[in-house]
Amino acid sequence: MKIGRIYGVGLGPGAQDLMSVRADRLIRGTRHIAYFRKKGRTGHARSIVDGMLAAATVELPMEYPVTTEIPFSDPRYNALLAEFYEASVRRLVEIAESGEDVVVLCEGDPFFYGSFMHLYTRLNGRVPVSVVPGITGMSAAWTATGQPVTWGDDVMTVLMGTLPEADLADRIARTDALVIMKIGRNLNKVRRALEHAGRTGEAWLIEYAAMAEERVVPFTEVGDIAPYFSILLIHGNGRRP
Amino acid sequence: MKIGRIYGVGLGPGAQDLMSVRADRLIRGTRHIAYFRKKGRTGHARSIVDGMLAAATVELPMEYPVTTEIPFSDPRYNALLAEFYEASVRRLVEIAESGEDVVVLCEGDPFFYGSFMHLYTRLNGRVPVSVVPGITGMSAAWTATGQPVTWGDDVMTVLMGTLPEADLADRIARTDALVIMKIGRNLNKVRRALEHAGRTGEAWLIEYAAMAEERVVPFTEVGDIAPYFSILLIHGNGRRP
Ligand SMILES: C[S@@+](CC[C@H](N)C(=O)[O-])C[C@H]1O[C@@H](n2cnc3c(N)ncnc32)[C@H](O)[C@@H]1O
Ligand SMILES: C[S@@+](CC[C@H](N)C(=O)[O-])C[C@H]1O[C@@H](n2cnc3c(N)ncnc32)[C@H](O)[C@@H]1O
Repeated sequence: MKIGRIYGVGLGPGAQDLMSVRADRLIRGTRHIAYFRKKGRTGHARSIVDGMLAAATVELPMEYPVTTEIPFSDPRYNALLAEFYEASVRRLVEIAESGEDVVVLCEGDPFFYGSFMHLYTRLNGRVPVSVVPGITGMSAAWTATGQPVTWGDDVMTVLMGTLPEADLADRIARTDALVIMKIGRNLNKVRRALEHAGRTGEAWLIEYAAMAEERVVPFTEVGDIAPYFSILLIHGNGRRP
Repeated sequence: MKIGRIYGVGLGPGAQDLMSVRADRLIRGTRHIAYFRKKGRTGHARSIVDGMLAAATVELPMEYPVTTEIPFSDPRYNALLAEFYEASVRRLVEIAESGEDVVVLCEGDPFFYGSFMHLYTRLNGRVPVSVVPGITGMSAAWTATGQPVTWGDDVMTVLMGTLPEADLADRIARTDALVIMKIGRNLNKVRRALEHAGRTGEAWLIEYAAMAEERVVPFTEVGDIAPYFSILLIHGNGRRP
């Protein structure tokens, strides 16, 4: 009996033609497509592939449980998510065991802070899994600024806005090039950390990189809100002939 | 009079189907294609697009001057390279001013430690330039290991093997996930820095990620040689539900 394969496919930063040729072929050719989304939403990953799916494609939306009421640090938060990932994996394994492949849509690059990783570690060893890398959101972000991000032997640091303020400030002070992701609700904390490190004037905020709403703003001009899809960037300035 | 556009096009890590759909279209459709190479070589970027070029495509190889005799720190090294970039830019501008576009092939992502950046800063403002981001070598490297590189709020640090040993050791000790590029001749220095930071056992070497010769080796089993196309990786281990 043939067993199907699960493909974790990187979609890149958002523009349809920035996905890889391999991703494009897999998505157009698959019978089963799965993706994460919030209840009642289309899902960002799904919207990137609009118009690419064959008519007969069967869709498997995986809807995040509502966690807004539960604090991040509460063990119930992790338990609820773990349960959700287990349930999603059961459905994927079922399809694979029926002999069919499934393409799981992943924003950016699947193995770089992606949610597919939570399925991957649970699928691996049970059914065949392949991962297709993608262009990251940060690559689209520095491309949008029209300035290379790293030169010569610049050090580049990638941070999440969810880190404690003191850690952020310390890391920001000690790098050449900087990328901060997950700004959203962490905007004001990130702003204080930047200020503390004395680097506010070098920073840019890139919203919706490679999407229709793309916007590049000097960080000093950023107001009180940053969308989920935004990245803070400081360019390196290393040796160059 | 129409003026042409220079496209700096990211090819991704090396597999032809890992370039973006946008890159694929530009490369197949262009009349002028330019790429860096060493004298007497095909050039790695050029070899990635083998079989994709239209018959009438005009090729413009840009051959690096021989610098092996000159130490890195000698001002003549930079002068020679600067002269080479200026000369390359003059040829690109000439084509653009004749009204035609040029696609410049770039390994990985053009703005991430890429050599196209040296042309870009000189072209920008003189003729229209567009940059197409690409999948980085490091994305292909962590995908090859079959293990996600960053979880939760892991800190990721990207270093060049050309950094001084003490800097390397210090940075390696203070990060969750780690990427070191330009290993090649810096292999033994990198090995000592890893050892000093006490992290040798966590490290992997990925040679030729996403190419035919791809190889993933625990760093403890690496011998005395690492190819130019190799990346050292330590996976992050952050919070996961
Ligand atoms: C869970 S991480 C996923 C990263 C993704 N796997 C990647 O490779 O880019 C989500 C964060 O990525 C960043 N991000 C991803 N794509 C982006 C884009 N196109 N524009 C702006 N930010 C983006 C935002 O900071 C967002 O909070
Ligand atoms: C000048 S940098 C260019 C980086 C490129 N712009 C990118 O986005 O990956 C060259 C270094 O990139 C790394 N590299 C790039 N592609 C690679 C691949 N496919 N496999 C292994 N290493 C790679 C190697 O460490 C090499 O020394």
